[in-house]
Amino acid sequence: MKALVLNEVRQLLVLQERPSPKAGKRQVIVKLKAAALNRRDYWITQGLYPGIRCPVVLGSDGAGTADFREKEVIINPGYNWGHRQEVQSGDFKILGMPDDGTFAEEIVVPQEQLFARPKHLSFEQAAALPLAGLTAYRALFKQGRLQSSQTVVITGIGGGVACIAIQLAIAAGATVIVTSSSQAKINKAMAMGATAGFLYTAEGYASQVNAEFGPIHLIVDGAGGDGYSQLIDMACPGGTIVNYGATAGIAEKLELRKVFFRQLHLVGSTMGSPADFSAMLDMVGKHEIQPVVDEVFALSDGNKALEKMKVSSQFGKIVLRVSDR
Amino acid sequence: MKALVLNEVRQLLVLQERPSPKAGKRQVIVKLKAAALNRRDYWITQGLYPGIRCPVVLGSDGAGTADFREKEVIINPGYNWGHRQEVQSGDFKILGMPDDGTFAEEIVVPQEQLFARPKHLSFEQAAALPLAGLTAYRALFKQGRLQSSQTVVITGIGGGVACIAIQLAIAAGATVIVTSSSQAKINKAMAMGATAGFLYTAEGYASQVNAEFGPIHLIVDGAGGDGYSQLIDMACPGGTIVNYGATAGIAEKLELRKVFFRQLHLVGSTMGSPADFSAMLDMVGKHEIQPVVDEVFALSDGNKALEKMKVSSQFGKIVLRVSDR
Repeated sequence: MKALVLNEVRQLLVLQERPSPKAGKRQVIVKLKAAALNRRDYWITQGLYPGIRCPVVLGSDGAGTADFREKEVIINPGYNWGHRQEVQSGDFKILGMPDDGTFAEEIVVPQEQLFARPKHLSFEQAAALPLAGLTAYRALFKQGRLQSSQTVVITGIGGGVACIAIQLAIAAGATVIVTSSSQAKINKAMAMGATAGFLYTAEGYASQVNAEFGPIHLIVDGAGGDGYSQLIDMACPGGTIVNYGATAGIAEKLELRKVFFRQLHLVGSTMGSPADFSAMLDMVGKHEIQPVVDEVFALSDGNKALEKMKVSSQFGKIVLRVSDR
Repeated sequence: MKALVLNEVRQLLVLQERPSPKAGKRQVIVKLKAAALNRRDYWITQGLYPGIRCPVVLGSDGAGTADFREKEVIINPGYNWGHRQEVQSGDFKILGMPDDGTFAEEIVVPQEQLFARPKHLSFEQAAALPLAGLTAYRALFKQGRLQSSQTVVITGIGGGVACIAIQLAIAAGATVIVTSSSQAKINKAMAMGATAGFLYTAEGYASQVNAEFGPIHLIVDGAGGDGYSQLIDMACPGGTIVNYGATAGIAEKLELRKVFFRQLHLVGSTMGSPADFSAMLDMVGKHEIQPVVDEVFALSDGNKALEKMKVSSQFGKIVLRVSDR
């Protein structure tokens, strides 16, 4: 079978022939139709991830067919979450490094990681869902406890998690405000149902958010960095900021006086539990949410797809078509 | 009646004669037996508090007699909390600036702020309880959701909130670990039932806490500052750090990667609601907790008491004896 292999960090991926995987006990072979990229894949190619082992097939997201359940499946990429809903166990891992991932024609996965493909989604849309949908669901509803009457600010629209977060939050009945450095991305988010969008590059944008929408109940952020202090200013008393990433790095200067006097909750979130995955699928099915696919590349064009992820020009998920059969 | 008056910031308090307060509708006059200091009083004398108005009588904590309820009362110093349990309203204020406080022979307070003095406490012990007990209770149980099976680290032992927090946490069945820059204070905390104490001035103390006690469920901190990042390292996956103060200032760097990957909860807490105050009193009564009184000064020695607060040499609350009658 063919697979996109990372033979060494900071090298291009190579499409090469590999032996088909074999299913062990309680494992299933999935013939992949589509896969999707996550920023994690890019970090690994750059050597910026702990414990990298090569050669390896990257890819956490995939949809395809299997001789199991309803035959058409998507994969929950979070393995060994453990028994505590509030946090993953020490054995938790994400599919695609160290285990071979979804940028391949075939993959072997434990049975319990397989879920039926949502019927309203194509394989490409389905492949766009798992890791981003899981991360967004947990950040919004488990860690952020979003209520339908509330207003949520979702930062850095364009990334896969932020895009599906807009859709899930709207489905939950919340008012959604987005931020981006790109007016074009803001316009796309508003076309999806966001109520307003703000350029975070504009001076004093946080006060403008508050002037127009009042203090904010929940902020879901994947960036951190210098902009984090403005999120603290934007949050309402008793409000919550959930971080699922820190692409802009460390937050300098945390003004704890604001945090304690306004009784804020600064909460970390990463991926999600099997219960989160299942709840996310239910919501996506019930509301017929379609993940935004930015562009579909052939598996053989995996390096072009990674290049797009590198410059963050996408809006939604970058998908790889693995097989049309 | 006599009162300790702050006529101007950065001046000494002056014991002077003032007209007795008059009770309006649904208000009660309390003849104070004892009052207690909080760091807030010191900040105000130094001009380091928003909205200072002089002349004013400071003091948030007091116990005395009133022609109301069970005659012997303590005062809940948090006014106008509002209807949301999760955070105070915009009208919230603490007794003692702008309203005249407890460093006086008499004070007028709204009826609903009065609670029966816990029967096992002297007036001086009772005066030591309100603001510190309220703050510690909310930080531990509402914001920190401490469970009896858990381990809690309480930082900066010696302060009034930290001292009563030790007692409340032990009463709840938790394992208590303390930190201080003073071995003498650590020894006192262990005599009160803390399981262990660590000098936060010692290199690598956080790893030592983890080596001996494993990762920590809950950390209750009133300092912030440079030491904050070590609290993040100390917390267990899914753990919580509650801040009720930032005497050491801004936390310079917040490593969001650690926060999101370990799904930490960084939670602010300030004072508490009337429900918190009532629950705190129940717990103090049920377990016959006696707040630690560091030293009792005469009302006329209020400036000496403030001086002790300034250098933080106390262990427990600094109390003013207002009247023996």
